[in-house]
Amino acid sequence: MTKYAILGFGTVGGGLAEVMADQKEKLAAAAGEELELGYILVRRDMPDSPWRDKLVKDFSVIENDPDVTVVAEVIGGVGDAYDYSRRALMAGKSVVSSNKELVATHGLELAALAREHGVSYLFEGSVGGGIPLLRPLSRCLAANRIDEVYGILNGTTNYILTAMDAQGQDFAEALKKAQELGYAEADPTADVEGIDACRKTAILADMSFGCNLDPAAIPTTGITAVAAADLALARRLGYTVKLLGRARRTDDGCLAFVQPHLIPLSHTLASVNDVMNACAIRGSAVGEVVLCGPGAGRHPTASAVAADIADAVRHRADPMVPDLGAPGGVLAPESALASPWYVRTAASPEQVREAFPGAEPVCAGQESAFITESMDRPTLEARAAALEPLSVWRVLA
Amino acid sequence: MTKYAILGFGTVGGGLAEVMADQKEKLAAAAGEELELGYILVRRDMPDSPWRDKLVKDFSVIENDPDVTVVAEVIGGVGDAYDYSRRALMAGKSVVSSNKELVATHGLELAALAREHGVSYLFEGSVGGGIPLLRPLSRCLAANRIDEVYGILNGTTNYILTAMDAQGQDFAEALKKAQELGYAEADPTADVEGIDACRKTAILADMSFGCNLDPAAIPTTGITAVAAADLALARRLGYTVKLLGRARRTDDGCLAFVQPHLIPLSHTLASVNDVMNACAIRGSAVGEVVLCGPGAGRHPTASAVAADIADAVRHRADPMVPDLGAPGGVLAPESALASPWYVRTAASPEQVREAFPGAEPVCAGQESAFITESMDRPTLEARAAALEPLSVWRVLA
Repeated sequence: MTKYAILGFGTVGGGLAEVMADQKEKLAAAAGEELELGYILVRRDMPDSPWRDKLVKDFSVIENDPDVTVVAEVIGGVGDAYDYSRRALMAGKSVVSSNKELVATHGLELAALAREHGVSYLFEGSVGGGIPLLRPLSRCLAANRIDEVYGILNGTTNYILTAMDAQGQDFAEALKKAQELGYAEADPTADVEGIDACRKTAILADMSFGCNLDPAAIPTTGITAVAAADLALARRLGYTVKLLGRARRTDDGCLAFVQPHLIPLSHTLASVNDVMNACAIRGSAVGEVVLCGPGAGRHPTASAVAADIADAVRHRADPMVPDLGAPGGVLAPESALASPWYVRTAASPEQVREAFPGAEPVCAGQESAFITESMDRPTLEARAAALEPLSVWRVLA
Repeated sequence: MTKYAILGFGTVGGGLAEVMADQKEKLAAAAGEELELGYILVRRDMPDSPWRDKLVKDFSVIENDPDVTVVAEVIGGVGDAYDYSRRALMAGKSVVSSNKELVATHGLELAALAREHGVSYLFEGSVGGGIPLLRPLSRCLAANRIDEVYGILNGTTNYILTAMDAQGQDFAEALKKAQELGYAEADPTADVEGIDACRKTAILADMSFGCNLDPAAIPTTGITAVAAADLALARRLGYTVKLLGRARRTDDGCLAFVQPHLIPLSHTLASVNDVMNACAIRGSAVGEVVLCGPGAGRHPTASAVAADIADAVRHRADPMVPDLGAPGGVLAPESALASPWYVRTAASPEQVREAFPGAEPVCAGQESAFITESMDRPTLEARAAALEPLSVWRVLA
């Protein structure tokens, strides 16, 4: 028997306590021993909580209890979460986390601390929520040189784009609806500006290519400039629009960026709708695999964190710390990556064909849209300049 | 440093030797020590093989070498593969395998032998080829009661159905083409009759529901009776046709069967074409995840087997043996599972509407097809009898 503690008692923390209780026996079998909830760290008074006997406000109670061998950090952010994670690792406790901001910005330091103190540091829930993703990437695909990872990594923006596509809503309208349903926060910036997807892309790139990226250096474009007209015209061209985080191996480092993309309707990612997430992984032996599922939410994220708790306990004698690469890899410029492009313009079809011979524009009122051949961004911008484009988005090819 | 042996030097065995050499460093990191190829067991003389120094014909050489701690069985079938697996386990060596026939029929006995001798028995490559599937099911989703697994588990039949759908070919024509391309064997029975998918379904059910099934008891219908007309009419109704293996938890055991299904075109599985496979897993905490990728092939399958070798070495002190359930669980009758149905008939639309009020048949020549409400099979058969159906297939709902 060993004890674990939950830091933070919001959506994921509450879900984690429920899931750990619901699947107690199965988790004990996976861990190799009984798992007992020791403490839940929460600031609020919760005298009516069924977990009231476990609630503590002072992290040092957890830090100083030698029976606690695993700490689940589900606070979020890089304040207390960072401080407590460091202290837990230094106290010789494994840390598991669903906190993408913390893993993307301080994961390398925390992983080093874990190695130094002979404990595990796992964060399956930080990317893709409940989708088995980081363990498949690092363990199941260990026989592969990973060449590319890309996917739909944020549920809020996917919900908004799905609504814009299915119901013809514009961005503001779809966002408002998402907020009413609890799929978007009151301040939606981190989601709609692509910041959340950027952090997850950084973690995937760190684990795949050996370069530890600063998320702030990853070119990131959110979905606020995607227009209802783009969704409508894209569909007529045989595509839908998804926000993709992408990272790709290069000769001396990697390339990583977050941007809205047109996705062919026949592509598996085009069927990933609403708050679902999906990630494609391209490996040297396996080819391409795509892993889909709920990218966030109370119980899906708790499912990932709970499995990490069981794995950390199972591997107490042989700790698990995923390789997050090393700083110093070259982040190649996004602009150099050639791809087809979607261009929406108010220019005439004749002007379009003059700039892009062979283009087959579809028209809606005064506007038209078309897909170009594959080219890098500077070439595209030079050739499209005369058309004064209203939208330019990459096409996943 | 530890030694491993490869039993069998066909497609997967050759691919395995290549992948292990190609990713030697990464696999050593995953395993925690260097992995050295000790032997390849092969009957043929191969004097020109780059691996000729490693080739042996007598299994007892491997069995009696104490430096060999892991044996990869990629022979296939239940003859030598079964004998050598038993002997390797009894000699205290971990066994990893991509052999679905062996795992489905003797896996329980081999798992017990592995536990008895304190070694690992892993078979990630036996279901879904290169797709990370069994490890996510048993480890990443350890916090879930698994309620259902279903998927496209055979690449040959998926290639044939994709060709029938995309090119309007009939079954015989598509099979011939698949054989020419090497996607179907000269004797295609095990694939097209659903036997291969049935074995994989049995393994998934064994691991998910705690009942160890006899594959021979699982109702299995292959694709030989799927007509080109079914694909064409299904598409007009908004569906495509896929061969699914399905298994579902019941109160006292499980339900499992293999049948062609109509899949809504918007479903993720509908985008899984050609030789790709995909498996959906429904869990109590996570909801539904779908894992897609190459379900067979030289390097994808080798990718899974190589990861198992690394994991078996990593866990020498703490062996990994997935739980394959226990005999005695009740296999519920497939006929009791209610679902919508697809019916193709030469009866008139009036006769259709008389038997199924509210049905909206689509017509092609003298025939028509429609989708029913949800009902069990006996009800469907009673109501459809007067229409003398030409095809009846389940609809995935």
